[in-house]
Amino acid sequence: MTVRNALYAQSGGVTAVINASACGVIEMARSHPEKIGKVFAAQDGLFGVLRENFFDTSREDPTQIAALRHTPGGAFGSSRYMLPRPDKAPEVWQRVADVFRAHDIGYVFINGGNGSMDVCQLLTRLGEVTGWHVQAVGVPKTIDNDLDCTDCSPGFGSTAKYLATSIREVGLDVRAMQETTKVFILEVMGRHAGWLTMACGLAARNDDEAPHLLLLPEVPFDEARFLDKVRTTVARVGHCVIAASEGLRAADGSFYAEQQKSATYGFEQLGGTGQRLSDLIRRELKMKCHVAVADYLQRAARHLASRTDVEQAYAVGRAAVGMALGGKTGVMPSIVRVCDDPYVWRIDAVPLEGVADLEKHPPTNFIRADGYGITDEARTYLAPLIVGEDYPPFVDGLPRFAELAYHRVPNCLPPFEVKASA
Amino acid sequence: MTVRNALYAQSGGVTAVINASACGVIEMARSHPEKIGKVFAAQDGLFGVLRENFFDTSREDPTQIAALRHTPGGAFGSSRYMLPRPDKAPEVWQRVADVFRAHDIGYVFINGGNGSMDVCQLLTRLGEVTGWHVQAVGVPKTIDNDLDCTDCSPGFGSTAKYLATSIREVGLDVRAMQETTKVFILEVMGRHAGWLTMACGLAARNDDEAPHLLLLPEVPFDEARFLDKVRTTVARVGHCVIAASEGLRAADGSFYAEQQKSATYGFEQLGGTGQRLSDLIRRELKMKCHVAVADYLQRAARHLASRTDVEQAYAVGRAAVGMALGGKTGVMPSIVRVCDDPYVWRIDAVPLEGVADLEKHPPTNFIRADGYGITDEARTYLAPLIVGEDYPPFVDGLPRFAELAYHRVPNCLPPFEVKASA
Repeated sequence: MTVRNALYAQSGGVTAVINASACGVIEMARSHPEKIGKVFAAQDGLFGVLRENFFDTSREDPTQIAALRHTPGGAFGSSRYMLPRPDKAPEVWQRVADVFRAHDIGYVFINGGNGSMDVCQLLTRLGEVTGWHVQAVGVPKTIDNDLDCTDCSPGFGSTAKYLATSIREVGLDVRAMQETTKVFILEVMGRHAGWLTMACGLAARNDDEAPHLLLLPEVPFDEARFLDKVRTTVARVGHCVIAASEGLRAADGSFYAEQQKSATYGFEQLGGTGQRLSDLIRRELKMKCHVAVADYLQRAARHLASRTDVEQAYAVGRAAVGMALGGKTGVMPSIVRVCDDPYVWRIDAVPLEGVADLEKHPPTNFIRADGYGITDEARTYLAPLIVGEDYPPFVDGLPRFAELAYHRVPNCLPPFEVKASA
Repeated sequence: MTVRNALYAQSGGVTAVINASACGVIEMARSHPEKIGKVFAAQDGLFGVLRENFFDTSREDPTQIAALRHTPGGAFGSSRYMLPRPDKAPEVWQRVADVFRAHDIGYVFINGGNGSMDVCQLLTRLGEVTGWHVQAVGVPKTIDNDLDCTDCSPGFGSTAKYLATSIREVGLDVRAMQETTKVFILEVMGRHAGWLTMACGLAARNDDEAPHLLLLPEVPFDEARFLDKVRTTVARVGHCVIAASEGLRAADGSFYAEQQKSATYGFEQLGGTGQRLSDLIRRELKMKCHVAVADYLQRAARHLASRTDVEQAYAVGRAAVGMALGGKTGVMPSIVRVCDDPYVWRIDAVPLEGVADLEKHPPTNFIRADGYGITDEARTYLAPLIVGEDYPPFVDGLPRFAELAYHRVPNCLPPFEVKASA
């Protein structure tokens, strides 16, 4: 039986659990030496392929590979490089084939979101275009949960758990401080889909618990209605805690933060939705308002990962290798929900063309009639994804993460200039 | 032996562990029925005293009181009300005495920072001024760690642990994304003292680990030097992670964020240090920069409390009651460091006049010569304060916090109009 090497690449924004998928890929590959030789990890994602910058994971200590399971960030570096179509850049395709041939790479695992799945799908055509055949299998990842054809995206559950926990905690803080601070806004990632903002809603068991208002990108923002909601919430509860999507949009479809920028300021004003909303509340309601912007903290917070999410991230990594070993290409392991409660899931292979470059949006029946909250249907879907804790080890008060040796694979080819991504 | 009731009040900004002190006070008082009757908790701190708004904690379930130990926020509400001097507002002093007399309150425990300790100290004079004597004992609390006469302030260690952990995690994220995001800034609380920003430095074990630069309020900010540091760090490491105090100051002593506001914008521009620094880096270095503002999240994050901090918070609550039972008044339990490693501490009583309205600043030998990092002396001091984890219970993926019944104490007096705090 032919033994060929494998390439693993992290692509797009990283998550608290993308390294758990790396761990799954590498451990599964190591247990099949009859088919897979070494697993090379591309440095900085697709850039590493074009630059022939690989790390040899076969020389890493198994305990450090195992530690990837609890290590946030992207251990090998990631990037947003998008492979051009073969007819647009034949020299890029030739380079990819040359690099793969030089390192005898027959299996490719791209760990990313919908844009990365598009790259993965393109690579299934590498043999037809250049003569060097690879089996390309996607490994799903995105905190945004906008990948289609899968119950959820690994990375989402952990960020969702972190945000819902944080907003429950901060809700108690604001409740205590309501003599002075009336409004608190947490700006949440997810520029195009409101999944993460919806997940914040899990923290509230009734209308009086934080968060009191969700501002979703799916619901056009209406300043007057919003201000009225804030006013009535403060009157009823004493304070108001808001989870606001960074991708909040005005009725005309433009981003709220950008709209404010041009309308109010007339010059380049950096800063996001949370700050704009806070300015509005202070100006119109004369209420003291605090804003938190979790930014990358929310996707790096491995200290509060969802155990369910970690297990799924690891499982899709293993399954991707299993699919390649089974002869598959152009597929992605997807998570299939068998049962809501108790949450039962299994993994299926789905063709990449059903996933690549598509965005999954929350169904309309997940959004409460008034637009400021989630429905029971949304809770049924979201609740199992944040269940379970999976704390990393702590040493001297701080988490101890994987420390890889990063053995570089010697280069075989001359350097290649990588042009800016499309 | 006379049995008198006790009053417990939370004052100033709340923390992840102030309720652990409440738990200590209430549990210790419950174990001394021979001297202490009921513990009443003031609603919204000192406002609750003037408004005669009390909760009767004696009617709460012991398991819920115990759960306060792992519950963030301020369970009874807090406020920043500052008691005026007796000669400035004799009617306020008479009201306090009337309320205390009406509820037979002989012990007062004020849980707060240096301003609150000033209030506590004033209350020792209540007998002399109004004829109603109380024993007033302070319970230390502040995430800012700026209370004098104590090794540290309960609340600080947990926020320090959360920030140091978060910046270690996010450092791995930024390292993975350095093809696009070169700089990351975490804006840290602590308007007047850099303790929390210093604590972020614990995450870096060497110069190449995040955070690469600390911006402390104690070190006048020099834009040119800072930009040069960022540039050389990105050139050396590939990216740069910065922990910046919200209280960063320019050479003239003004807050950096406020200075930028007037100089650059010429109108009221809300938003903080992190955003200003990001604007500067994008403008001058043309680098992509992300900013996180943890705001209240950092002081509410009970999910990542320091076990050392929780133990100290609980212990000072118990000790405050012990001091009152021993006949003391006008004191505060302070934490005394016996040994750095292993960290050994005990509790002493210190007079409130040594604490009230004073700010403790980091010694200059805690700041690295270049001003952008911490020294080994700082590490020796800070390291033990974040040691140990103390996770709250999680149910269905979210933390389960105390749920008090909040039994109101019936009012005995006519309403009293509370004027704005001095």
